[in-house]
Amino acid sequence: MEKIKLGIVGYGNLGRGVECAVRQNEDVELSAIFTRRAPESLKVKSDTEVVSVKEIENWKDKIDVLILCGGSATDLPVQTPEYAKMFNVIDSFDTHAKIPEHFENVNKSAIVGNKVAIISVGWDPGLFSLNRMYANAILPDGNDYTFWGKGVSQGHSDAIRRVEGVKDGKQYTVPVEKALQSVKNCENPILTTREKHKRECYVVLEEGANPKQVEEDIKTMPNYFSDYDTTVHFISEEELKQNHSKMPHGGFVLRSGKTGFDKENNHIIEYSLKLDSNPEFTSSVLVAYARAAYKLNKEGQKGCKTVFDVAPRYLSPKSDEELRKSML
Amino acid sequence: MEKIKLGIVGYGNLGRGVECAVRQNEDVELSAIFTRRAPESLKVKSDTEVVSVKEIENWKDKIDVLILCGGSATDLPVQTPEYAKMFNVIDSFDTHAKIPEHFENVNKSAIVGNKVAIISVGWDPGLFSLNRMYANAILPDGNDYTFWGKGVSQGHSDAIRRVEGVKDGKQYTVPVEKALQSVKNCENPILTTREKHKRECYVVLEEGANPKQVEEDIKTMPNYFSDYDTTVHFISEEELKQNHSKMPHGGFVLRSGKTGFDKENNHIIEYSLKLDSNPEFTSSVLVAYARAAYKLNKEGQKGCKTVFDVAPRYLSPKSDEELRKSML
Repeated sequence: MEKIKLGIVGYGNLGRGVECAVRQNEDVELSAIFTRRAPESLKVKSDTEVVSVKEIENWKDKIDVLILCGGSATDLPVQTPEYAKMFNVIDSFDTHAKIPEHFENVNKSAIVGNKVAIISVGWDPGLFSLNRMYANAILPDGNDYTFWGKGVSQGHSDAIRRVEGVKDGKQYTVPVEKALQSVKNCENPILTTREKHKRECYVVLEEGANPKQVEEDIKTMPNYFSDYDTTVHFISEEELKQNHSKMPHGGFVLRSGKTGFDKENNHIIEYSLKLDSNPEFTSSVLVAYARAAYKLNKEGQKGCKTVFDVAPRYLSPKSDEELRKSML
Repeated sequence: MEKIKLGIVGYGNLGRGVECAVRQNEDVELSAIFTRRAPESLKVKSDTEVVSVKEIENWKDKIDVLILCGGSATDLPVQTPEYAKMFNVIDSFDTHAKIPEHFENVNKSAIVGNKVAIISVGWDPGLFSLNRMYANAILPDGNDYTFWGKGVSQGHSDAIRRVEGVKDGKQYTVPVEKALQSVKNCENPILTTREKHKRECYVVLEEGANPKQVEEDIKTMPNYFSDYDTTVHFISEEELKQNHSKMPHGGFVLRSGKTGFDKENNHIIEYSLKLDSNPEFTSSVLVAYARAAYKLNKEGQKGCKTVFDVAPRYLSPKSDEELRKSML
């Protein structure tokens, strides 16, 4: 069997996750890792060829799908439209408000290139979006709830580390159990920011820093912490390394809806993820959608797509007959 | 806006559910309810025309999608292939083992008729199948778990009612909390039938019946109860009517999978439903897929499909732009 040839652009947490996920999928193989750094400086985990991103054009006919593992702020808005002219591409663009604009840009390129580009793939946006959409189509009369966590927020961890007196730190976003239970009990609560999530910080102090002041500075930080109930734990550097170096995450998407001639029946659709490694899980989603992009393009499709546009069957390596027999 | 014209075949719990669900979806309307009974004998909740199923052919051009609400044992194996020659159809065929055969029969008819038929729609098969499939594509290395309940099992309730000395009864299938927790804790347990579900029976005795004997007869009934931990509660007829006349159901689909170069990271994908009314929820799924069948056929598609073959976007009344903006 001819394997689907994948390429990775960008070798951070996500790129390493894709490198790893490829090994779990027998119908795909990793042909190259593209980097902006000097290729020889990159230590990769597999024996995959590392190539300067400047030479990417030479790989046009050697790669079936390119998985773009850059950031949403500055990398993907440029890379996805650029590479969609030459490759089927997948990205995990996650700036929700800018998705419509990104879609249009990528769509133009992919149509010109006769390629399929699937954007905003991952779990949110991605699997969470899918579940919001399916649940809304099924229960038109209802309310949506999304909770994130328990998980490490990179942005909030960075914010902690910018506080004077902080040497290092990690921040966990945690759903408030009471709010989650209220939703599950069909109470359709209206929840404030504070009622939905709390924030737990694990902080290593600089020598001589004032813990009272650091705690105060974190808890009152606007946008990041002031609207939340925040707990600050001071720990040693060793403790941080030992207990808080993983990147767990997860969350819940719920829809609470009513049916019946008198709206007398309540229903809850719940989808949840509990992930030890946010980047490895996201990468696993990217690889499944890379398979889909390859198949869709083989069928003659082109243009930009999102998870809403891809029939589930395209994600699986199994045949339609197998799927009907084993999973329906 | 032209509404999508739906027809219902069969006016049981499911048919009544569809009649109700149509009212919650502004882009669809109910044109006719077809019945094998004398049409004038049928009391329907809405002001929909009731028509003998013998006249269904006359409605070929007046209905966009027919929702087949009969049973999987004898109705659907005949009806779905028959009506797929004339109409786009949706059914909730749920005899898992016979799905491949049913698919082939329906596919032939739908291709001849230039129609779209979507079979095995509902929550299991249906939404649960979708979640099994997505989760398997994303986490290839893992285990699947499905738990049903807490909910009323029609088949088991019928079985109770056949026991000598039983006047009436309802049976609830209940997931065993310990097993569910073990799965959620990534312990990947191997579970026996008894360890996964327990059965709770609410029984009204005939006058003079021996409760000890009835309890014994229920608990030792092969296939239905003997492999499970079963509890029998004797209650009054009034109590049964008051507390056990609804048809709640639900369940859990979980996939527990590993990623990482050394498979060091665990992930749980969980999907769950908690439904006050099994037939009303199933009907809501049927209506969403009726919308999809209509749109797919408008695009020129034909043949038999399952939930795996339908891109999520087709289920929603919203435009692609709206979906990307509001739900991605």
